[in-house]
This record gives sequence, structure tokens and C-alpha cells, in this order.
Amino acid sequence: MTDPLVIFTPSGKRGRFPTGTPILTAARQLGVDLDSVCGGRGICSKCQVSPGYGQFSKHGVTVAPDALSEWNSVEERYDSIRGLPKGRRLGCQATVQGDVVIDVPPESQVHKQVVRKEVTARDIRMDPATRLYFVEVAEPDMHEPSGDLQRLSEALEAQWQTGPVSASLPLLRKLQPTLRAGNWQVTVALYQGHDDAAPRITDIWPGLYEGGLYGLAVDLGSTTIAAHLCDLRTGAVLAAGGRMNPQIRFGEDLMSRVSYVMMNPGGDLEMTRAVRDAINALAGEIAAEAGADPAMIVETVIVCNPVMHHLLLGIDPVELGQAPFALATSDSLALDGSDLDLAALHPAASVYILPCIAGHVGADSAAVALSEEPGKQDALTLIVDVGTNAEILLGNRERVLACSSPTGPAFEGAQISSGQRAAPGAIERVEIDPVSKEPRFRVIGCDLWSDGPGFDEATRATGITGICGSGIIEAIAEMRMAGLVDARGLNGSAEQTGSARMVPEGRTHSYLLHESSDGRRITVTQGDIRAIQLAKSALYAGARLLMDEFGVDKVERVVLAGAFGAHISPKHAMVLGMIPDAPLEHVRSAGNAAGTGARIALLNRAARAEIESTVHRITKVETAIAPKFQEHFVNANSLPHATDPFPELNRIVALPDLSFNTSGDGSEGGRRRRRRG
Amino acid sequence: MTDPLVIFTPSGKRGRFPTGTPILTAARQLGVDLDSVCGGRGICSKCQVSPGYGQFSKHGVTVAPDALSEWNSVEERYDSIRGLPKGRRLGCQATVQGDVVIDVPPESQVHKQVVRKEVTARDIRMDPATRLYFVEVAEPDMHEPSGDLQRLSEALEAQWQTGPVSASLPLLRKLQPTLRAGNWQVTVALYQGHDDAAPRITDIWPGLYEGGLYGLAVDLGSTTIAAHLCDLRTGAVLAAGGRMNPQIRFGEDLMSRVSYVMMNPGGDLEMTRAVRDAINALAGEIAAEAGADPAMIVETVIVCNPVMHHLLLGIDPVELGQAPFALATSDSLALDGSDLDLAALHPAASVYILPCIAGHVGADSAAVALSEEPGKQDALTLIVDVGTNAEILLGNRERVLACSSPTGPAFEGAQISSGQRAAPGAIERVEIDPVSKEPRFRVIGCDLWSDGPGFDEATRATGITGICGSGIIEAIAEMRMAGLVDARGLNGSAEQTGSARMVPEGRTHSYLLHESSDGRRITVTQGDIRAIQLAKSALYAGARLLMDEFGVDKVERVVLAGAFGAHISPKHAMVLGMIPDAPLEHVRSAGNAAGTGARIALLNRAARAEIESTVHRITKVETAIAPKFQEHFVNANSLPHATDPFPELNRIVALPDLSFNTSGDGSEGGRRRRRRG
Repeated sequence: MTDPLVIFTPSGKRGRFPTGTPILTAARQLGVDLDSVCGGRGICSKCQVSPGYGQFSKHGVTVAPDALSEWNSVEERYDSIRGLPKGRRLGCQATVQGDVVIDVPPESQVHKQVVRKEVTARDIRMDPATRLYFVEVAEPDMHEPSGDLQRLSEALEAQWQTGPVSASLPLLRKLQPTLRAGNWQVTVALYQGHDDAAPRITDIWPGLYEGGLYGLAVDLGSTTIAAHLCDLRTGAVLAAGGRMNPQIRFGEDLMSRVSYVMMNPGGDLEMTRAVRDAINALAGEIAAEAGADPAMIVETVIVCNPVMHHLLLGIDPVELGQAPFALATSDSLALDGSDLDLAALHPAASVYILPCIAGHVGADSAAVALSEEPGKQDALTLIVDVGTNAEILLGNRERVLACSSPTGPAFEGAQISSGQRAAPGAIERVEIDPVSKEPRFRVIGCDLWSDGPGFDEATRATGITGICGSGIIEAIAEMRMAGLVDARGLNGSAEQTGSARMVPEGRTHSYLLHESSDGRRITVTQGDIRAIQLAKSALYAGARLLMDEFGVDKVERVVLAGAFGAHISPKHAMVLGMIPDAPLEHVRSAGNAAGTGARIALLNRAARAEIESTVHRITKVETAIAPKFQEHFVNANSLPHATDPFPELNRIVALPDLSFNTSGDGSEGGRRRRRRG
Repeated sequence: MTDPLVIFTPSGKRGRFPTGTPILTAARQLGVDLDSVCGGRGICSKCQVSPGYGQFSKHGVTVAPDALSEWNSVEERYDSIRGLPKGRRLGCQATVQGDVVIDVPPESQVHKQVVRKEVTARDIRMDPATRLYFVEVAEPDMHEPSGDLQRLSEALEAQWQTGPVSASLPLLRKLQPTLRAGNWQVTVALYQGHDDAAPRITDIWPGLYEGGLYGLAVDLGSTTIAAHLCDLRTGAVLAAGGRMNPQIRFGEDLMSRVSYVMMNPGGDLEMTRAVRDAINALAGEIAAEAGADPAMIVETVIVCNPVMHHLLLGIDPVELGQAPFALATSDSLALDGSDLDLAALHPAASVYILPCIAGHVGADSAAVALSEEPGKQDALTLIVDVGTNAEILLGNRERVLACSSPTGPAFEGAQISSGQRAAPGAIERVEIDPVSKEPRFRVIGCDLWSDGPGFDEATRATGITGICGSGIIEAIAEMRMAGLVDARGLNGSAEQTGSARMVPEGRTHSYLLHESSDGRRITVTQGDIRAIQLAKSALYAGARLLMDEFGVDKVERVVLAGAFGAHISPKHAMVLGMIPDAPLEHVRSAGNAAGTGARIALLNRAARAEIESTVHRITKVETAIAPKFQEHFVNANSLPHATDPFPELNRIVALPDLSFNTSGDGSEGGRRRRRRG
């Protein structure tokens, strides 16, 4: 008689096992991904499975009602105390009695797929650096003396194949009482990096620890710090949040912070303190939101640009402010939380910082590369992470290029007359009728268009307070397509455009987007257009420079990354010439790709090794010294599209282009040209 | 024509090299141990050699006066600035022009032999974990961006074959300004442990660093902390010193310190603080004595018994106070100085703590094993490290056994009526004439015997203040051989012994060793003899237990270790039955063997790996639970030798043994027996 056949779903793995084999044992022998913290002792309940009964024609088996051993006392007790969902068995208790089909539900898989990438094929599976292990430790024996740590290490090796482990002095202080309190059964949180170093015990609890174990993925930007709190057992995002980077008080953009250090010796340490304090505070806030203890955050991954990187690490960033933009260190860093004064976290928390690509292309770009994987694409892909600095990646399976470009803060609503950060009340979407030149818009916090019924009512609470980055881009692009602004970026007058919304403002004209009942006006001024032109020229010139290097004059895919990138309308970005033209269906937003990359590195050790190897294969292009960058920058000044490049996609009809005669008016451009003449 | 022959002495290594080959290059290719910090750039002068000229019949060559290139400008400049000893050349500058014999003076050898073991064959050669490297680093290149650390690491790999190196955040903070101050030439202190971990940069200096680099070897005893400051470049001991272990105020011996913790929760942390403070203070004192900056102590090795070990590490030692005497950790530890709050040292100092052998046999015993190498001896060797606790090792090439025995502090002069620590004024040597029963003695700080001319004058300054550990052992052994005390350890009366120096003291008799002019008496009382009997019985019983385990009833060699062991007269120790009988010429003192072991581990990385492997092969014997230990202890109470066991070695003649009739006298023994009767 042959042994019973055991088939696991969804993996489809199958094998024959002697009657009486526990399901957990069968799963392990077949390499089926079935979780267990207690190692099969019937106390952790992580190995729950759902046996199927009846006929499985696909698998060619019929499962008898007695294909598994009967419900036993361990399952009984577990069910009475904590409740076992209907139809579930504990894989360590149920044994094979006949042919059987066993489904492993997602929550019982160790390597749950938690970060799904819609376009790329790769699955991000749970394989965090810190994991929990329940272990039974041999008691000390005077005749064979050895340290408690050595016996714990041997137990971990024997029961979990961890290899020899190490422990810090504070952990050693805790070790002996914990082993005895647990009667030689303990749960250990073990940190195992992706290098060859011995695993390190992060914490230890008597008996089976069932409390939380968390990881924090931090995207440390020049302006904002965003973070996700993840459950390190399941990969679930428990809470997310952000706060302003307090370094803003030392300078709005990166170079002004570097200048602050040059003017104020020791100023870097002020900024280091500020950002570390902010990360601590943010960790506390997010943990509180999730009802979690921040002291159980045992892992943190941080991504940031090079200046933020150095200021976080306590390294003077002054070399990053001048050619040749030398980083103190470019490799990834595996640190202790205490190295960064992250006192809110677990005292033995580990911190992983992704590698930098170059002096201007940081760990945040590496995180974008990890998330978006340009080097695994068949189609030539341009990835633009828009922020105060834009990081740009261009590549495919053949090669990947990277650069950064100093766009300045205009895209974030700074330097814009009615600009504001993206917050309720800010105009974020704009349409201008090319015939009537009348606008309609939407504000953050309200789903209605401004020309629809109920809009005034719906926006009464927030008001209409200003215009955010995505709003100003749409406004200018729509003005361009409505013939209100010419290819040079000059606003026309009411007379030139035939629109009373073009109102004089000083010596130039502004487009009146909205006037509230108290007379407060939101306009798009000539200065606003100039600021956006500078920013978008920098962005476009960077992309062009990479295209030159690659030897192409168009790209096949465009990915807009960054919190801001997620809100940009691809069409309007192309109208403005922010990004090279591409088929609209091949332009997509990746949201906070740097943050996603941080989360991937938090939950999957192999991803850390992967990005470390990837960054070495990325070719860095330095915009600051490339003569062609200046050329592209100057050439990119114009607003290329006078008409909607994708008219089939919306109602706006094309109009002939026009160029305002500015030689006789008071516009800035006209005055300048006159002075030169 | 064949290439010139180059012969190096003292190694005898030889080879033919093309004309023009630098001597340093030839040495490296032959594996000759010739130092160089600057890597052959003519700036460190570490590669000085002494060429020999004329006929070398032993080597079969004649060296012509022009066998080396002429004195060059680099040597000229070096000589004019710092002076090059006569006859010396710089190995990196002088090139081969003909057959030549080159002597490498000891100070030019990297692996200088610094700790010479007189008996064992092993040489301890300089191979410290921290070494200096002068290195030229590539400047940053915008087109091939990489971190300064990565370029430094590549330079170290290329120029010194170090493998990739790591650096702490404080070092990274220092890295960029130092590289630029040194114009891309720097000296790096690199810590490379004996495991597989990447070497770590301890410190960095612009240009060639020629200041001090120190190591500290610490023998942390229950009573005293002793330390040696070594030059990590040469291995020379620059200064040595000691101070009391401040934990004494919490308890004189180990068990009373453990009790203190049990009575006073948190008391372990008080003791941890006290001992760490003391090590800091001691490091400062010793460095000051050597005129060295303690902040340049980059390496420390510490040896100590298990209770000291745990208290140093901040681990509650309470488990060591009760069976099964479980250590929190028994393996060696590689720590940072900051882990132990050793703020007096270099901020990136590393600390190595030797492994413990068992709960009663600590890193100090491991250090003794490293220094005395019982496992490499042909002769069965007993090593006794006498302190408040005695550590005992017994073994040969076949196997090694270890145990510890609680001797108590009597051997250190405590619990002795006139006892005192070894200090000027203390009686350390005693002889008693077996006929006249008159004593003569010597005191610490004076080379004269008390019956010689000039003694009173010579000891006026110190006085004669008491009797130290080695003195009391000699006094009692001499009393035994002079018939003043019997085999049971009972003092005779003046009548029984015929000596007026046996004076009544309470119900027993004491031997009057000395009476000063002011009437202050130094006597050996019945209580003193009882205290020494208890201590020596414990010591002997431990040794016997190991001999039983080994299956022998005598040993071939005895090594007395420890500061105290160095002062014990082997003959007197055998008369008392402290140690098993052995041929006197095979009994030797090893001085502070634990301290020597610490110094070996400080200067030689391979020794660390060696002792880690050795301790696993040592069989531990637990005295506390061995029934035979009690039996041996009781049996060891008597004083075995009534006569000088080595009469040929001195003037003392043998006398017949006698046993005092105590049944009728007032002695303690007699009274006890009467009570029972």
C-alpha cells in the first residue's frame, strides 16, 4: 500500500507521506511556505490550514472525511481559549491519514506577498531581517558548563537552523532572568542582516511572545518626512503619517542648508538633532495612531537624498555643496537605532539606510530604482521623482542612467504668488474652456468641480485658499491651450486674448482663476509662469541629458514618482514640456515610489542585497558639469504644446497657436528685450 | 649574467632579484618580516636595514662596497631631519646592485618577538588587532562618483590588501576633512579582529601619523586590578600599575559580593559602575606614568574571574552564586570601549575579553592557560593560580582539566592576626633554626636578613609592620620543621617545645616572631595556623581532585601563578601540603600568568583564536558538587612534612617528628576533644 498523497494549495506542491505525519512536517519537507513561530508545539497557531474534502478532479484525488486525524486536545484547548476559524486545523497537530488537499491561507504563509507591483512581475514577499523564534533551551549542567547564551544559540541552531547568534550586553543582562521566568522556553526576536554577520538577538521574552513587532519605513525628504508603520509578522501597513522636516527653519532647499553650515560652524549638528528628534516624534505619533508601542519598532529603513543622508548621520554636508560633490560614504549602512539617537524605538532597533548613487542622487533614488526596477524593463523607461530636487532615472534591461536636477520648490507651491502646499482648500485641478476662456477647478477635500451644483456649500468649511503644485501646472497648461499664454510663456492682455480674466498686475497680466466673496483673488501671474518655466526646464533638461547619454530622442514609458508626481496630470505635464512626450497610456504615476522602495527593503532582506548591487550598475550623469545640460535648459524654456496633444481624451478642442506681440506692452519679456535693444 | 643574490639575516631567506630592485620589495617577495607603515614612500623610516659588506663565508658571498645603490636624496633628507643610525639604509630607497647581505634589526621587524616564554618553545610575535597604515586615496571624480570611504577602502585594499573596511558614524564625520587636510594622504588605524568581520577604521590622521598607539592589558582581580600599557607598534611595556578593586567595599570575596546583590537589588550596577570607573582611573594613571595620552589606547584586553566578568559587563552575577553556577555567556567578547563606559580610552577603542571556562573558572584561568600552555606540555603540569579563589589547571598534551577552589583570603594576609598585604615593612621570608628555634626573617623593601648587620638601620623607615601571605606560609612551614607545631597543626607550649618563643595567648600558644622596641609583637597564633590550614586544604583538595580525574597520584611539574604565587617558596608550600610533592627543580613561579596571558592576547590576534579553541577542549571539574573534594579537603588538613623535604638545598637539618600531647593542655584541639569525650 502506498503512502497517502498530500497536496498543498495554492502552491500545488505534493508528496506522499507515511500515515501519522503532521501536516506541518509534510509542508516543511516539500518546502511549502507554512508559518510556525513555536516550531510545531501547538502554541502559536501560526500554522493554521484549511483541509478540503470531497472530490478534487483537478488534482485527481478524492479526500475522505477521515483523511486527517481527529481534532485533538491541543486544538480543542486552542479553540476554546482563542477560537480557531471554522474549517481550520493546526498544521502541527493534524496528521495525515489518507490522501488530502490542504490549503494554506495567506495569513499562514511566512512569505506573504505584501507589496504588490502592478506593472512589474516581481512579488515582494515577507522576509524581514527581524523574526520571532520560540525555542526550548537546555538547562545549565555543572558537568558540561556553558553559558546560557551558548545554550540558547545551540537551541536556535538545532530548532531553527539560525547559525550561532550574538547578543549585546543589555540583552545579556536580561537573558538569565528571562530564561528562568519562561522555564527554559523563550521567544527570541532575531535580527539577521543580509550579510554574513552572525544573527543578533534583539529581544527575548519568557514563553511564547504574542505582542507586536513593528518596522518603520521612512522617506526623509527635504520638506516632509513620511513614514509607514508595518507589522513585521504580516507586512501589513498599520499606520502612515508625515510631518514637516524641521530643518526647513535652517533653509528651504538643500543648498541653503549647506550654506547654513558654511555660515554657522556646528550648524550641521543642529540640523542633525532636529531631524533625529523629528523621526522620533513621527515614530511616536504613527505608533500611537496604530495603538502600537513605538518601543516595539525593531527595524527601520530610511531613504533620503544625499544632503539629508549626511545630516541624518551627523556628517557635515559641505562637500555635497560644491564640485566634485563627494559623499563621505555611498554604500548602504546597517546601524543601530542608538547610533542615530532614535530613542523612541526599541533600544536594540536596527536601522538600514539604502545606498546613495552619487553626490546628487541619493538613497531615495535608489529606493525608487528598487520599487520601479528600470533595469528590468523591456521598454525604455523614464522615471521622474519630482521634489525640490528632481531625481531622474532612464533605462531598460540594457543599462540604467541616473541624474538629479535642481528644480527648486516651485512644483511644491513655493515661489508661486497664490501657491500653497497640497492641503484642503488648495486648487489641484484646473480646466479652461478654450473658447470662453472661463475656468473651472477642483480643490483638495472636495470631489466637485467649481462649476457644479453644491460646490460653494461643499467648500465653505475649507474655503478656497490657494493653488498647489499640481494645480499651477494644470492652470498654466490650460492657459497655454486656451491661447492665454504664448510659447515663450508670456501672458497676453485682455485685449490680446479676448478674455476679461487677463487682468493687469504691475506691468504684466495675470489670469484671474478665482475671486472669493471677500474679494481675495487667486491669480496666475507672469512671475508664476516664469517660476514654473525654470523648474520644468531643469526637469526636462535632466531627462534630455540622460536621453542623449542613452542615444535616444524619445522614451517608451514615463513614470511620475513622488507624492507630488502622483498628482500631476501627465497630459498637462507634457503640454508644459516638463517631461518628454510619450504615449499617454504609457505614462503612469507610481505614487511615493521612494517610500515604497523603503517598505520593500523593510520587509525583504534580499531586496537590500539587490539594490546594493543595482546601484553599482547605474551610470551616474552629473548635470552640474554637463555643458549640454545648460543648452537643454535654455532650449526647454518654451511651452511646446499650443494645443491639446491628446484631444481624443477630453472635450477641449484645438485652437490655432498665437504669439503675443509684446514689444509694445509692459510685460517683463518685452521690457527686457527693449533694454537690450 | 644571473641576477644579484640578496640574503636577509637573521631569517636566512634569500633570492635573486633584478638590479634596481628596492630592498623592501625583495623582502616582501621573500616573506621577510620587514616593517613599513608608509608602504615604501620613504617617509615612515620603519624599513631601516643594515647592509653588511665584505666576505660572508657562511653564506658563500662577498659583498662589494657598491652592492647597494648610493645614498639618495630621500635618505639624505630623512637623515638630516630625524637622523638615521650609522650603517642604516631605508629599505624602500636602497636598491640591489650586486650580491648583498641585509640584516633586519629587531626594531624593523613587524612581528617582533615581545613576550618570551622561558620554558615553552612558543614565540609571541607582534600581530596586534589594531595597526597603522599610511595610504594614498584617489580624489573624488564626478564622472565616477563614489564615497570617500569607498575610495579609502579601495586604496587600503590595493596598497595593503586589507579587504573592504567599515567605519563608525563619528569616524565618517571626521573622514572628509582629514582626507583633504592630508591632501589625500592619510594614516589609518585599522582594527581587524580574528573573526571574519570587515576591518574597522578606529582613527584617521592627515599625512603620516607618528604619535603613540597603545594597548592596555588588564588583570581584573577580586582584590586588585593590575594593568600593563603596551606600545602597539613595538609591543614594549611602557608602564604597569595597579589599584584596589573598589568593589571591596561591597564584599571582600566573590560570594559576599554576590550576596550584596541578593540583599540589595541593583547592587550589581553599583559594582559595575565602581569597577568601570576604576579601570578608567587606572588607565589614566598608567598612561600618565608613561607620558602617554590615554585617549590613544585603542585596544584593551581584560581577564577576570566569572563574577568579576559579569559585574564588569553589567550582568547580575547571582546565578554564579548558586548551583549550577550558570554563566550568562561563556564565549569571548569583542566589545567597544563605550559598551563598558571606558571613556578614558580612545572613543573607538576595542575591548577583548577572554572566554570563561566554567561558572567558577574564568577568563583569568583562560589567560593562564594561554600563557602557560598546559596542553602543549609533555610533562604532566599542575598550574595553581593562588588568590582569594584558586584556579587550578592540570594537564599535558593528552588533556587538560580545570577547577577552582575557594581558598579564602588567608593567603593574601587577611584573617591572619598580624597579617597584612604585601607592602614595605611586611615580613615575607622566614627561617627558624631547628635547634635553637630562633627565627630570622626579611621584610619587603630590604634585602638584609633580620640577624645581619645593618638590618635595624635599613628597616627604620618602614618599620616591621606585619606578615604577608608568603611570610605566613614560610613561618608555619618553618615552625613545623622546627618541631614547634605538630602534624595536626597544633602549636606546642614552651615546655613541650623547649622554646621560650612559644608564648601563651588565651588558651593556646603563639610563636613570637618579632617584638619591636615599643613592645608591639608579631606572632603566629593557633588561629593563624587554622586559617592557613583551611586555605591550603582547599587548594590541595582541588589539585587532588584533578589528579583523581586524570588518574594519577603525582605530577611532574608545578607552576605557581599569580602575583602571590610568584612569592611563595615552593619548598615551604610543599612542607605545608599546599601543593602535591614534586621535584623542587620542576616547581617554578610564572609570576602574573593571567596578566601575561592578557598581554599575549593584546599583542597577538592568533592567540585569541587559539585560546577560544583551547577552552573548549579543557575539561571542567566542579569542586562544589564533587563528594571527593570534601574527602580530600578533610584529609588535607594535616601538615605532612615534619622535616625539610629538600635538606640538600639548605642548612636546615632534619629533626624527628613529634606530636604534642594536647589532652592535658589548654589548646583548642585538646579542649575540643575533651568536650566530646
